[in-house]
Amino acid sequence: MTTINKNYLKLPGSYLFSTIGKKVREYEAAHPDAKVISLGIGDVTQPIAPAILDALHAAVDEMGTAEGFHGYAPDLGYAFLRETIARHDFQERGCDIAPDEIFISDGAKCDCSNIQEIFGTDNTIAVCDPVYPVYVDSNVMAGRTGEYDEAGERFHGVVYMPCGPENNFVPELPEGEAPDLIYLCFPNNPTGAVITKPELQKWVDYAKKNGSVILYDAAYEAFISEEGIPHSIYECEGAKECAIEFRSFSKTAGFTGLRLGFTVIPKALKPEGADLHGLWARRHGTKYNGAPYIIQRAGEAVYSEKGRAQIRQQIAHYMENAGIISEGLKEAGYEASGGVNAPYIWLKTPDGMTSWEFFDHLLEKANIVGTPGSGFGPHGEHFFRLTAFGSRENTLEAIDRIKTM
Amino acid sequence: MTTINKNYLKLPGSYLFSTIGKKVREYEAAHPDAKVISLGIGDVTQPIAPAILDALHAAVDEMGTAEGFHGYAPDLGYAFLRETIARHDFQERGCDIAPDEIFISDGAKCDCSNIQEIFGTDNTIAVCDPVYPVYVDSNVMAGRTGEYDEAGERFHGVVYMPCGPENNFVPELPEGEAPDLIYLCFPNNPTGAVITKPELQKWVDYAKKNGSVILYDAAYEAFISEEGIPHSIYECEGAKECAIEFRSFSKTAGFTGLRLGFTVIPKALKPEGADLHGLWARRHGTKYNGAPYIIQRAGEAVYSEKGRAQIRQQIAHYMENAGIISEGLKEAGYEASGGVNAPYIWLKTPDGMTSWEFFDHLLEKANIVGTPGSGFGPHGEHFFRLTAFGSRENTLEAIDRIKTM
Repeated sequence: MTTINKNYLKLPGSYLFSTIGKKVREYEAAHPDAKVISLGIGDVTQPIAPAILDALHAAVDEMGTAEGFHGYAPDLGYAFLRETIARHDFQERGCDIAPDEIFISDGAKCDCSNIQEIFGTDNTIAVCDPVYPVYVDSNVMAGRTGEYDEAGERFHGVVYMPCGPENNFVPELPEGEAPDLIYLCFPNNPTGAVITKPELQKWVDYAKKNGSVILYDAAYEAFISEEGIPHSIYECEGAKECAIEFRSFSKTAGFTGLRLGFTVIPKALKPEGADLHGLWARRHGTKYNGAPYIIQRAGEAVYSEKGRAQIRQQIAHYMENAGIISEGLKEAGYEASGGVNAPYIWLKTPDGMTSWEFFDHLLEKANIVGTPGSGFGPHGEHFFRLTAFGSRENTLEAIDRIKTM
Repeated sequence: MTTINKNYLKLPGSYLFSTIGKKVREYEAAHPDAKVISLGIGDVTQPIAPAILDALHAAVDEMGTAEGFHGYAPDLGYAFLRETIARHDFQERGCDIAPDEIFISDGAKCDCSNIQEIFGTDNTIAVCDPVYPVYVDSNVMAGRTGEYDEAGERFHGVVYMPCGPENNFVPELPEGEAPDLIYLCFPNNPTGAVITKPELQKWVDYAKKNGSVILYDAAYEAFISEEGIPHSIYECEGAKECAIEFRSFSKTAGFTGLRLGFTVIPKALKPEGADLHGLWARRHGTKYNGAPYIIQRAGEAVYSEKGRAQIRQQIAHYMENAGIISEGLKEAGYEASGGVNAPYIWLKTPDGMTSWEFFDHLLEKANIVGTPGSGFGPHGEHFFRLTAFGSRENTLEAIDRIKTM
């Protein structure tokens, strides 16, 4: 008799953004005239940049010729893309990362949920609280946590590291026994907070001292606008011996609908002498078949001179939105942070409302969709996330509505 | 201290096709003048059909406009594609499969390696022997098998179902305790064998009686040329209550480099009352972000009138190759099967050679790359797989070389 993976049953409700989507669809069905503006899910809205479109068209044309046709991609990605990434994202920043330490994939969500597979189920995990739900949920599914504690809104066996205004949303080093796998995400989703290089160095030193592995999600590095904020964990000394880094083209270049990301596993990363690079290569070879050729060519175009100029403009546009939201919220009397080195604005809900109460309030009173902070963890309660990815028009209108709500 | 997933260490050597690739690269490096022809890995060679190219270009253009831009795809795939698939692949064949029972993905390899995640690790698995290595390897990684037995070339705890000339490469129903998860693939990779509808019905009845789930890989259904061979397991009565089906655009329409596939999980499939459809939806929502919009539009074009006509021509071309290989092998004195309803030809190695001995022999004497049967399981020993996916020119030359070897 077939049995199911009972770990799935530990997960409460559905995935956060599926729940939000359902609530919004229900609201829209009941209020067909409402013009709902979503500043909720972190999805981009600007069209793909011209230099990238050109690369896509050219690659599609290639696929239509016998000489230019590309079948199965190399397991770990095309050399042209891996080399481009190694040069621009790492070597030019002084990080000694080689092309063959880079694994191309169809996105950081897949990578950061699949990475746990190469680790033992006996590892303890630590996450920031609040946190992108995928880190915890993928570990729940794999049986690396205990049951869900309804009252505490947390899984037993997971080390939650509180992040709030009191620590500028950067967690303190855990006390007691060191966790084995430490998920860090900076610039942070959902809080928009960043970590300085000396602060990140402390984490690297801690991981090295304790034999922990840091799983570093740098999906938002392109939004960093201030000096002194590391774009990669490999800017820290010794990080190659203790850290895996995830990157994404989704927010950097509007690839949420094209799907492209990559993971860096340095060959020097050998906990217990184990070859994590080799294990991940084996996983890729066995369970994955590469990102589409045309998408990898699009990824390459992101680094071209034209591509970089166009992407910079897009990011600047979103960050102007972030400024509009941050300023508008402050004018409307809200406490808010983020939005300077990240496309997320993290606001304190007014009048002691819970995050979901504020979600309903905002949807009903202003027809605006945001993301309840409590969906990211217990310390996200009484907070709320807005994103800068809307159109300018929608962003301005949303802020007007919030001000007059 | 971080530990790794030690199940990975049970896997012997590297993934079959990675090993072959390495051997070929080494041979080519040592013999730079050799014109090596690959009839090894099942990768297509014909360019993407014009109707599909048009759809790709149109979708790329859409992505460059504010109105046509598509960000995150729906978790389970775009409705336009799911509806098209449900109609053409299932409803038109009398299979009552609804669009919302179809999950779009980036390929059948990912799906058939990931599907095991939603089942308990205590399930026993049964596979044909020989078999596509991904079914077993993905279960090894998940800890659903014992250690590898070097001498027997098999994993403890896996039910291997021998397939050879004596049973026309269709396995017998297992004796003794019924396995929980049964992987079947027809038309078969690697043997090219097919199963008749009455034979498949026996498996469905067996699974229903024993509470087993059949994981049915129909990636090659488009190559079926004979009447009476089921294209989908849902042509059998009761299959919706016991079977999951995997499909791929890779071989049907040359999408190995575009990446698109889908999995069917009927809502009626409820072993132990468990909602497998819901579990897979949860997995998709949490660990996957959808296939690219432009690729889903390309998939839709496969079903257009023009697309279908063009695809039929491509498949006919490959099947002519299959005929050339089958005939040529017979003329050269080889025993061979397959190649009628599948793009694979399965030949008996001559003179008692092992599969890898024949691999080396063929590479050295004729500069032809094939796939050693033993790479697919112990009962694949003394067999060898050739594929019909080469160009016409290469296929003809390969057969000439084999004849004069």
